[in-house]
This record gives sequence, structure tokens and C-alpha cells, in this order.
Amino acid sequence: MLQVRPFDIEIGQHKVMLNIVEARERGLNAGDRVRVRTKGAATTAILDTTLEMVKPGEIGIFTEALKDLKNPSTVDILPAPKPASLCYIKNFMDKEKLSEDQIRSIVQDIVDNNLSDIELAAYITASYIHDMDSQEVEWLTKAMIETGERIHFDTHPVMDKHSIGGVPGNKVSLLIVPIVAAAGLLIPKTSSRAITGAGGTADLMEILAPVEFSAAEIKELTEKVGGVIVWGGATNIAPADDKLIKAEYALSIDPYSQMLASIMAKKGAVGADAVVMDMPVGPGTKLTTPEAGRTLAKDLIDLGERLGIRVECAMTFGGSPVGRTIGPALEVKEALTVLENKGGPNSLKEKSLSLAGILLEMGGVAGRGEGYSAAEEILTSGKALEKLKQIIEIQGGDPAVKSEDIVTGENCEDILAPAGGYVVAFFNKRLVELARIAGAPADKMAGVTIHKKMGERVKKGEPLISICSSSDWELESAVKDAKRQMPIVVEGMLLERYPRMTEL
Amino acid sequence: MLQVRPFDIEIGQHKVMLNIVEARERGLNAGDRVRVRTKGAATTAILDTTLEMVKPGEIGIFTEALKDLKNPSTVDILPAPKPASLCYIKNFMDKEKLSEDQIRSIVQDIVDNNLSDIELAAYITASYIHDMDSQEVEWLTKAMIETGERIHFDTHPVMDKHSIGGVPGNKVSLLIVPIVAAAGLLIPKTSSRAITGAGGTADLMEILAPVEFSAAEIKELTEKVGGVIVWGGATNIAPADDKLIKAEYALSIDPYSQMLASIMAKKGAVGADAVVMDMPVGPGTKLTTPEAGRTLAKDLIDLGERLGIRVECAMTFGGSPVGRTIGPALEVKEALTVLENKGGPNSLKEKSLSLAGILLEMGGVAGRGEGYSAAEEILTSGKALEKLKQIIEIQGGDPAVKSEDIVTGENCEDILAPAGGYVVAFFNKRLVELARIAGAPADKMAGVTIHKKMGERVKKGEPLISICSSSDWELESAVKDAKRQMPIVVEGMLLERYPRMTEL
Repeated sequence: MLQVRPFDIEIGQHKVMLNIVEARERGLNAGDRVRVRTKGAATTAILDTTLEMVKPGEIGIFTEALKDLKNPSTVDILPAPKPASLCYIKNFMDKEKLSEDQIRSIVQDIVDNNLSDIELAAYITASYIHDMDSQEVEWLTKAMIETGERIHFDTHPVMDKHSIGGVPGNKVSLLIVPIVAAAGLLIPKTSSRAITGAGGTADLMEILAPVEFSAAEIKELTEKVGGVIVWGGATNIAPADDKLIKAEYALSIDPYSQMLASIMAKKGAVGADAVVMDMPVGPGTKLTTPEAGRTLAKDLIDLGERLGIRVECAMTFGGSPVGRTIGPALEVKEALTVLENKGGPNSLKEKSLSLAGILLEMGGVAGRGEGYSAAEEILTSGKALEKLKQIIEIQGGDPAVKSEDIVTGENCEDILAPAGGYVVAFFNKRLVELARIAGAPADKMAGVTIHKKMGERVKKGEPLISICSSSDWELESAVKDAKRQMPIVVEGMLLERYPRMTEL
Repeated sequence: MLQVRPFDIEIGQHKVMLNIVEARERGLNAGDRVRVRTKGAATTAILDTTLEMVKPGEIGIFTEALKDLKNPSTVDILPAPKPASLCYIKNFMDKEKLSEDQIRSIVQDIVDNNLSDIELAAYITASYIHDMDSQEVEWLTKAMIETGERIHFDTHPVMDKHSIGGVPGNKVSLLIVPIVAAAGLLIPKTSSRAITGAGGTADLMEILAPVEFSAAEIKELTEKVGGVIVWGGATNIAPADDKLIKAEYALSIDPYSQMLASIMAKKGAVGADAVVMDMPVGPGTKLTTPEAGRTLAKDLIDLGERLGIRVECAMTFGGSPVGRTIGPALEVKEALTVLENKGGPNSLKEKSLSLAGILLEMGGVAGRGEGYSAAEEILTSGKALEKLKQIIEIQGGDPAVKSEDIVTGENCEDILAPAGGYVVAFFNKRLVELARIAGAPADKMAGVTIHKKMGERVKKGEPLISICSSSDWELESAVKDAKRQMPIVVEGMLLERYPRMTEL
């Protein structure tokens, strides 16, 4: 029997620690699995070893395993086999094809925290180096769907929208969801928060209403008003993705097969029948060339077919921000302005209507080629604004909110053109960086407003951008940093649509 | 300022933990580096996030970082860049060639615990999938040598021996080291302990004398008596290897380039001029075919040339255990029996003399082709035994030890042949497993003795093997397990030698 030293620290894993001498005595090594037993309780944990933290005869047990064992004072341990999924990960490294059961077993162990960081990283690294074939990606996606919560709607079709990301200021979901829902279609939109950006759709919507709901609540709310805009991270939908993102973020990689599966798993889990993919193409986005966009479009459509989900992809201009604002409050204000028909940038309006139009066509409420004008009618008639207010209300926000109510940073400072001329260069990533230095997304009021577009004539001393923040200090940092920035906006956001109209 | 919650747990890393809300506020994510500062002290740590363990406004700090910061009560933190080596690891995943400086930077960060488990695993996985070219392996080996302690002998040549492993009962170093030292050559042999085997050379030698010495002590002892047999793990020689092994063990992989570098780094760090490689070939070893052995031999010789170390490789029969014993005490007893010229198995004697003979030739104390007989003379004359006693004494053991003094397990049980016939099959891995179930290597007395060899006639009821253990319970487990075992021994251990005699 080993004396327990409780280590009350959540480590995200069932973990125990033995002195290296004790481990050696027992023929155990760091990384081995052990079955830990006490009267009436048992659990399997990953072993770590230490020279000093625990003495021979003792065992350190971390929070997760302590809970399973009900805080025992002594335990005994036995060697336990490593999860079978480790074998499959090894096969994957060896570029062997994986079976459906093997992929399922890997995903289940990821969801159950049965893999150590080392093992998870090996899987992600192998994913990055070796692509899976389309059959494997289908199985991977299904496994990611089936290891989490799912929504089954009684009414169909269920629409959804996803952006591949990489373009700043992309607040289009705030317009697309109400347009589509106002057309009578269901659209249960789960969104992300910013990881490296200045604000995800969930960060934006949070200004208008709460965004944390369970899968059951998402179903209920969507059935009542046609749509929601919520944070996917609060649900247990495709939970493998969150664990994978941790390792992907640490390594700054985004394995292609895994990206396909993660996107489609979230759509499959909410029961989507038809999805439009926003694929920003351009320098600084994930898709630097139209060719890369076409390959991805083909693969997403193919994967959708395998899953019974219709997918259409719209390559959009990703070379500059969508609209003129970056940062939660600024973006929400801009989106509301468009919904209220009080103006707003063409790039935002055009992109939102293009994507919403595709969904209206896919959902059968607009004829082929008529989606854009149908969406435009819903927007200009005020029906979209009305629908957004319903969505805000049902999510617990104030439906009377107006664009002018949205409080943006009190401290703003203009960055002036150091010389006259035309705007000829523009760096998306630096603009996002500026918004983040100013405090976005945590400081909802922080952000950047763009005054001059690509190709536009600028006089010396005219403002190029304004930076806002709740904090003097952060504003000052951002302004200092901004002395190297130039802004751009380009009209005509939809470059190409897949499948092409002529192919349909 | 953040309130410190000390987490006094060694995590093998500089690590801090923020509440996920606090991290989000600061634009930080798990895996990011942060600079942690307090009055008069600062350190860089890897960030983890938690929902519950620490509240917003608090920071959990683990032992390693706490020490650097001198147990502060409050700290502030700033985002810090990730180590540059992460970029190089990413390049490596992308199959780009690495420069000498990049490889050095990766190895230095591994030694300094600057990489998280996820990052280390990504490097190991990429190593496993992508081979390095010989130039990169040279740089890797040099980086592994230079990031640890080194021994510089004043006398030359310095000889060394390494076994690629995979064959049980391989106690040959206990004979080779004293033969080579008795011939007047230096041989500072650092050995490993068993990881998955029943006993490494260090586990064996520990029965005769202490094996934990610093690099400086190894030099001193070797200069006094010509040789030592010590545990490499107690030194700081090529310390990157221990960290890499952790991830390799967890993933059950042994990346080829990394294996080459790890082997040669340990030889380079002790200042070896000439090394003989024991390369057991056969089912169950790391080299299943002679072709695989030849490739490895070529690569080791090539790497040696780049490092200024002469390497000769001897492919040896690895299909069955060396000698008739597996397990520390049994193996030591068998090795002493041979040194005392009181018999002992031919396979052990022949293999030891072959490898020692190669070293005598390489060291210039025997003519080409005369090494074996020179080694045999040293053995039969008793000089080797005399030298081993000097080595035992200088390492702090009892030089009067005799083979009959070695206590092996009191509880032994024979496994009898269930039917008469000839021995036709033999499973090395199962024999090792049996010895481990019986308690080896921690229970020094536990092990397996082999009574019948491959092809030998066996009568029903004759003992095939005996299993010994200090523990009744473990003996019983092993005996139960043994009902599926069959033993083998083959004479004529040296199959082939590289470079071939005719090429020299």
C-alpha cells in the first residue's frame, strides 16, 4: 500500500506521481498507466515520476484522480495497459491507414482525457505531416460528432454558416443569421471567441445578449425564433476540438485533415442540412491563393456529401478587413447600423448579403441566382433587424438596443497620414495586433476604425485610422505601435462561388 | 499585480496557471510564454489555464518557477515570445533542413526544460517521421555533447563499447571492460539501467559495487585502474537524451536519427576515440534483418568519422539470450563464473571475446585478426578477473567477491517440458517478461535460467527453464505465465563484422 499525498491541482488529466526509486522497484516508468485502487473505488491514471516531491512508499495524486478515488489515505497500484489508441497513433505516424474503429478510439480517448500531452501532441504532429484520405476524414468527423452532444431538429432544413477565418472585422454573422431566420429557415449558429484575433462572433454577440447556452437550450431557442448566435465553447458539441486546439495552438499548426473534420463536426453536431462556407482569400488569411481556396472548397463539399450535409463555398476577398471596424463594440455598432439601414460600409453589406443569399437559395426560399436580392429585401425592409431583436431578446438581451446605444471606447486617437498620396498598402495582421494592444477582445470597447480605403486619395494630416480603448495606457501603447500602419478597404467582396453557377 | 498561489509541485518545467477569464482578459492562452516579475526577481514560464484552480486576479506558480522568484506573494506578468526553437521544430515538421544553430537551439531548450511536453513530443514525432541527413545528425550529436558535461582524458586511446540492445542476458560488458582495461587501454563505460528489459549493465554492476559517479569521478577512476562500469544516468553526460527518452518511451518510438545521435553523443562526451558497436540481429531485436544492421553500421561509422571517433560494428546473433541467465544476480554470477574460468556458456564467452578482441585491435594492442586470441589469453590467464576486482574495489565494492557468493533467488521453480522432442521455438520477449514478472530488475535476485537450447533434445518432464524470485507471490505469477514459454540457446554469436576484414 502507498501513502497518499493529495496534490489538489487540476491537471486536466488523471495523473499520479511516484518517487523514481519506488517506480523503478515496481518496474514502472513515467508515461505508464497504472490502475489505482482503494476500498470501493478505482481509477486508471498516467504515471509521472519525481526525485523529490514524494518519497518512496508515497504516491502523489492530482485532483481528477483524487475525486474518482474519494480522497483515500492509502491506495495500491498495478500496472495497466496503455490505451489501444496509442497503437493507432503509432500506426498513423507510420502512415498506415486507420480504420473507423481506430479513429473512433483515438477521438474517444482525446475527449476522455485519456491521452497525455505527449501522446496528444504526437497525434497532432502526425496529422500535420501526414494527410488523411477522405474516408479517414469522414470517420474522424463522425467520431468527433458522436463523442459529443448533438442537436436533432424536428423541422428542416437547418442552415449554418462557417468562416475559415483570417480576415479581421468579419462581423457578417450578425447580419446573416437574422436574414436567414427572417426568411423562415432555422440557423443555430455556434461561434467561437477570439483566440488570436480581436473578437470572434461570440465576443461580439455578447455585447447584445448572453451567449452561453447548452445544446438543449440552443435547440429550444432556435425552434422558437429561427436562429441564435451563441458561443460553441459553452456546449459539449464536438468536444474533441477544444482539446485538439490546445495542442494546435501550442505548436502554431492547423493540420489540414483535422481542420476539415473540426469544421464539419460542429456543423454535423447541430444537425445542419446545408452550410455556406466563407473562405477569405488573400495575403494574411489562411488561403493565400484562389487555388488553395478551390482545393479546400472541393474537400469540404466532398466531406459534406459523405456526411449528408450540402456545402457551398464562397471565396471572399480577404485582403482587407470587412467593413471599417475591428474590435467588439465597434463591430457591433457597424453591424447594427447596416441592419438599421442607416448606411454602413458596402463591403460589409455586400458580403453579408452574398452569403445570406446563398443560404436562402440552398434552403429553397429563393430561386437560383435570386438569393442576393431576396436577402437584400429582408435587410432593407427591416425584417432582419426585427429578427435580430427577437434573437437578442430570447437570449436574454435588450431588444430595444440601437446602434447609437453601443458604447465604444471613450479614449480614441486618430493616426494621421504622414504625407499626401494614395493608399497602396495595408496590413491586416498589424491592424488586429493594434486592436489587441488597445485591449480587444477582453476590453469590448477597444478597437480600430478605418477611415481610408485602398487606392483612395489621402491628404497629409488626414486621419487614416482611429484607435479606441477603455485604458489610457493601452491606447498610448497602441498609438505608439500604430506609427507603422497603413489602412485599406476594397469593394466587391465576393470573388468566386463554388460550385460555380454554370456547373449547377 | 496578481496574487500568488504557490503550487509546490515539481512539474519538470517553469509553469504558471491563470484562471481562463484572467487569461482571456490579458489576451493569453494556454501554451503561451509569460515573463513573471516580482521585486528583484523574474523568470519566464509556460502558461496553463484553469476554470477552477485559481480565481481571476490570482496566479498559480509551480515549484521550479517559485524558486526563481523566491516565493513572492504578488507578481506581475507580461506576454513573452515563444522560444525560437519552436519555429525550427515547425520547420522540421515541414521537412525543411535545419542549420547547426537551429539544432543547437532546439537541444539547448530541451536540456533547459524550455519546451513543454507538447512541444517536445512534436519534435520527437517529427524526428520519427522525417529522417535527418547525415550533416544534421552530426550537428545534433555535437549539440547533445556540448550541452552536457564532457570528459577529456590525457591518455589515449580511449575505448568504448555500445550495444544497440534488444537481446536479453547481454552481460558482456562485465567481461569486455576488464579485458580491455587489463590490456592497458582506457575504457570508461557508462551504462544504462533497464527501461523495458530485465536488467541493464548498470543494474548488474550495482550488485558488485556502487555505480553512481560524476563525470569528474569517472575520469579519475578510469585513469587509476583503466576502466569503470557506471550508470550514465547519474552523470550530466549528454543530458538531452534523458529528456528525449521520456517522450520516446511514452510513445514507444525510437526515431532513427535521434538514436544515432544519442548513441554517439554519449561516446563523444566521454572522450572515446574508438568504439565497438554490438548489433544484435534477429527476431525480437531492433535489427530484424542483416540488411537493417548493415545500414545502421554504415550510418554509425559515417557519423563517427564526422566526429573523429573510429567505429567498428559487430553484428551478433540476437535470436536468443546471451548465456543462459536473465536477471541481475543470475547474470552477474554467470559472468563471474566465466571470468573465474570455471565454465559458463560458450555464447557468452565467445561474444565477449569477439567484441573485446575488436577493441584490442582498434586500440593497437593486438594485430588485425589477433584480437580474439589476445582477449582469450587475458581471460584465461585470470588478468581479466584481476582487473574486474580492481574496478569493483575502486568503485567501492568488495574485490574479494566470488561467483558462488552471489545470492540468487531462494524461491526457484522449474518449468518442465510438457512432452519430449527437440527445442524448435524460443521467444526472447516472453523470457524478459517472465523475469520482470518475477521482479527483475528491482528485485536483483529475480530472473530466469535457461536449461535447454535450440535444437536440443528434450525428454518429457525435463526442466526447460527455472524461474527465481525473492517473492513467493511474484514467483507464482511468473510460473503461471511461463506455461506458454519455450527456451533456446544458439552457439556462434558473431555473425558478421563491419567493416569486413577484406575491406581493411
